[in-house]
Amino acid sequence: MCATSTHDAKQVSPITSRATDYAQWYLDVIAAADLIDHSPVRGCNVIKPWGMAIWDLLRSQLDNRIRASGAQNAYFPLFIPQSFFSKEADHVDGFAKECAIVTHYRLANDENGELAPDPSAVLEEPLVVRPTSETMIWHMFGRWIHSHRDLPLKINQWANVVRWELRTRPFLRTSEFLWQEGHTAHASQKEALEFSKEMLDMYAEVCKDMLAMPVVQGAKSASERFAGAEETFTIEALMQNGWALQSGTSHYLGQNFAKAFDVHFQTEDGTRELVYATSWGVSTRLLGGMIMSHADDKGLVLPPNVAPLQVIIVPIVGKSQEENDEVTRTYHTMVHALRQRGIRVDVDARQHLRPGAKYFEWERKGVPLRLEIGPRDLKKQQTIMHTRHNDVKEPVSIADLNKLVDTLSAKLSTIHETLYQQAQERTQSRTVEVTNYQQMYQVIAMQASTI
Amino acid sequence: MCATSTHDAKQVSPITSRATDYAQWYLDVIAAADLIDHSPVRGCNVIKPWGMAIWDLLRSQLDNRIRASGAQNAYFPLFIPQSFFSKEADHVDGFAKECAIVTHYRLANDENGELAPDPSAVLEEPLVVRPTSETMIWHMFGRWIHSHRDLPLKINQWANVVRWELRTRPFLRTSEFLWQEGHTAHASQKEALEFSKEMLDMYAEVCKDMLAMPVVQGAKSASERFAGAEETFTIEALMQNGWALQSGTSHYLGQNFAKAFDVHFQTEDGTRELVYATSWGVSTRLLGGMIMSHADDKGLVLPPNVAPLQVIIVPIVGKSQEENDEVTRTYHTMVHALRQRGIRVDVDARQHLRPGAKYFEWERKGVPLRLEIGPRDLKKQQTIMHTRHNDVKEPVSIADLNKLVDTLSAKLSTIHETLYQQAQERTQSRTVEVTNYQQMYQVIAMQASTI
Repeated sequence: MCATSTHDAKQVSPITSRATDYAQWYLDVIAAADLIDHSPVRGCNVIKPWGMAIWDLLRSQLDNRIRASGAQNAYFPLFIPQSFFSKEADHVDGFAKECAIVTHYRLANDENGELAPDPSAVLEEPLVVRPTSETMIWHMFGRWIHSHRDLPLKINQWANVVRWELRTRPFLRTSEFLWQEGHTAHASQKEALEFSKEMLDMYAEVCKDMLAMPVVQGAKSASERFAGAEETFTIEALMQNGWALQSGTSHYLGQNFAKAFDVHFQTEDGTRELVYATSWGVSTRLLGGMIMSHADDKGLVLPPNVAPLQVIIVPIVGKSQEENDEVTRTYHTMVHALRQRGIRVDVDARQHLRPGAKYFEWERKGVPLRLEIGPRDLKKQQTIMHTRHNDVKEPVSIADLNKLVDTLSAKLSTIHETLYQQAQERTQSRTVEVTNYQQMYQVIAMQASTI
Repeated sequence: MCATSTHDAKQVSPITSRATDYAQWYLDVIAAADLIDHSPVRGCNVIKPWGMAIWDLLRSQLDNRIRASGAQNAYFPLFIPQSFFSKEADHVDGFAKECAIVTHYRLANDENGELAPDPSAVLEEPLVVRPTSETMIWHMFGRWIHSHRDLPLKINQWANVVRWELRTRPFLRTSEFLWQEGHTAHASQKEALEFSKEMLDMYAEVCKDMLAMPVVQGAKSASERFAGAEETFTIEALMQNGWALQSGTSHYLGQNFAKAFDVHFQTEDGTRELVYATSWGVSTRLLGGMIMSHADDKGLVLPPNVAPLQVIIVPIVGKSQEENDEVTRTYHTMVHALRQRGIRVDVDARQHLRPGAKYFEWERKGVPLRLEIGPRDLKKQQTIMHTRHNDVKEPVSIADLNKLVDTLSAKLSTIHETLYQQAQERTQSRTVEVTNYQQMYQVIAMQASTI
C-alpha cells in the first residue's frame, strides 16, 4: 500500500521561464510533469499516465453532465466511406484536405521481400479515418429518425479522431486526439439553437468547476465557422501570455446535414419535414488550456478537481527504526482517513530518493498539497503542509484526524477558488468592451503599442 | 424527470427460437434489444445507446480492477509504422494479414472531378491501423525503461482496434472493436508469468461478478497462441447451445518483444538484462458471451450488474385525472427512494403506447425487473413486480418505501445468483474430465452421437 507509482525523475531538464519564451515554457512544463511523450508517428503523441489520469477525471465529469442533458453514449465506426464527404459541400472543403486515408486491407512481402501494402488487397472505395463524425452519424440518423416521436435524438460519442496537421503542439494540435462529439436532431429550429447554446453553457461550467478556467462565450464569424454549420458558438480562455485559446465549440447546423443525408420526420400533423441539427465537442486540448492558465516557472499547477493526486505525503526518515515505524503508522491512518472522505492521496515512500528530490518532482507534477511528516513533527502532533501554487508552508495539527481532513478539504476548495480568481482577474483586466469595429481597431493598436 | 429515452419499437420483428436456429436467434435478440446497427463500412457495427450503456458499466468495473492491479491508463497512437511489424517475426505473421493500411494523407478531386486519394500526398511509410499495440508500446517502453527501479511497469489502454475480418458477427467478430489492452514489463520471468495469471483471474472474477458468466480457465495449445507469446492463457465460457466462447486472454510474452525492441534494464547488481512481458485484453466480445449465456426466446436477459436499467416502472392509466396524479406522485417517490440507494430505475410514461407494448419492449431489452402500478394497486398499497428471466409476477407492498428498496435490492442479487447458477450447472453438466487424448476422443465421439 501507499507506494507511489511514479517513475524516477531521471532527466531533470530545466524549465524555460515564461518571460523568456512562453512557447518553450509550455513544452518544458509538459515534459517536466511527464504528461506526454513523442511517438514515432508524425504529429501523434503518447499520453502518459499522469496526463491520462487528468483527462480521465475530466472525462468522467463531462460524461455525467452530457448524460444529464439527455444525451446517450453510442459508438460509430472509425472509418467513413470517402463518398460521404462529398454529400455536404462545405464539409468536404473543411475536412477532406487533412485526413488519413485507408486504401489497402493487407500487408504482404513485395518482390524484394519487404513488407508493403498488398496490391491485390485494394479497397473498392477508400475509407477516411474520421476527422469528425457528422457524415457517419447523419447517415445513421437517417435510419433511426422517422417520426416526431423519435425527436429530439441526442447522441454522444467518446472517440479518437485524426486530422493531418502540419504543425503540431502537445494537447493543442495533434494529428490524432481524443474527444467527445455530441450530435443531436430536433423537430424545430428554436429547440436546436437553444440546445447548442445549452451545451456551450455546460462546457463553460465544466471549465470553471473542473479546470478553474474562466471562459468567454461567443459566436464565431462566418469565415471561422465549422464546415457545414450555420452558427458556431465557442468558449475562449485567456492564457497567461495573452493568447486566447478556443477551448470548445458547439454548432447549430440548421438543416444542412439533414438535407445532405435526407433525414425527414413525420410531424404530429402528418407532414414530412427536415430535422434541425447540432454538434458540439471538447477534446484533450482542454488540458493545454489548463496548463497555460495555471502552470508557473516551476512546473504544472493542477486545479484540485482534476488532480490525480490532490495530496502527496512525504515521510521524513528519522534516526531510529522505532521513530520510522511511528511515522509509517501515522501516515497510514492519515491516508485511510483522507481516502474515506474521497480525497485522492498517496505516499511517496521511495527510499532511494531524498525528500528534496521528491518535493521537486511533485511540484513539477503540480500536486496541490504536500504533507511532510517526520519524527520531529510527530512530537508536535503536526504535519507541515506545503501549498503548490503559492509556495506557502504551514504546520497543521494531526491530533484529530477528522479535523485534519476538514482542513485539507477546505484548503483544496480555497486553492480552486484562488486559481479561478487569478485567471478571472487576468481575463477581466485584459478585456475591453467595444461597440464597433473602429473602436476595436483602436484598442488593438493601443494594446500592441504597450507590448 | 422519469421520461424514458428509448425509441418506439417500430419494427417488431419476431425472434427465431434457439431450437430452430441458434445463430439466427443471436442476431434477432441483438436487433430486438436494439444493441447495435449495421454501418455502411464492411464489418463495422454501430453500438447503439442500449448496447453502449452495458459496455460502459462493464468498462467502469474493469477499469477499477485494472487500476487495483497497479496498472495505469495511458494512450498510444492509433497508427503504427509498417516497419514495426517486421520486428517480431511471429507477430507480423499473425497480424499483418488482416489490417487497415493508411497510405495517403489527403483527398483531392481527380481529373474527372471526383474525390480520390491525392497522388501528391502519399505517406513515405504506410501506417497500419493498430490491430493490437504491442509493437508501439514496446517501442515506447524502450524509452521509459532503464533501471530495475522502473519495473514493474504496468500500462493499460482503452482503445479501438481494427482487424480486417472476412466473416463478421456482432460483438463476436467485427473489423473494428473496442477493448482494453494491458501491457506490462517485469524484471523476472516468475513475476511476469504470475502477473499474466493474476490478470486472467481478474477477468474470470469480472465475468462472474458482472456478467453472471462462469468461465473455464486454461492455457491455449501452441498453435492457438497469440502471435509472439510464449504462453496464452484464456477464459472460455460455455454458451447455451454448447459452443465454447473465448472471452478474454492473457499472454506471457517472455522476452520476445524486449528482444525485438531492445528493451534492457540495469539490475540491482549493475548487469544489463532483457525485461519480461505480459499483455492481456478483453473486448466488447464479452457482450456476445453475456447474450448467449442468458438471453432466451423472448429476447435479452440482462444480469442486474450490467443492466443500464435494473427496474422499469410502467404506470397504468386510471379513469380519472385524480387517480393518475396519485399514480404519478407515487412512482416519483419510488424512483427517488430507489435512486438514492443506487438502483438504476426509470419510468416508461409514454402516453401513445399501451402497457402491453411497453412490457414487450422492456422484456426484449432484458430489464431484470418491471413494476406495474395503477389505481387498483394503489388501493392495495402494492405494485406488481415482474421478473424478466423466469416470467414470475408477484405483488410487493409499497407501504414502506425503505422496505420496498430492500426487497428489490435483494431480488436483484437473487437474479444475479440464479443466472450464474443456471450457467454454472449447464457448464458443469457438459464438462467431462479426461486425462489423456484417447479418452478425449471417446468423449467427443459420444457427445457427437447424442446430438
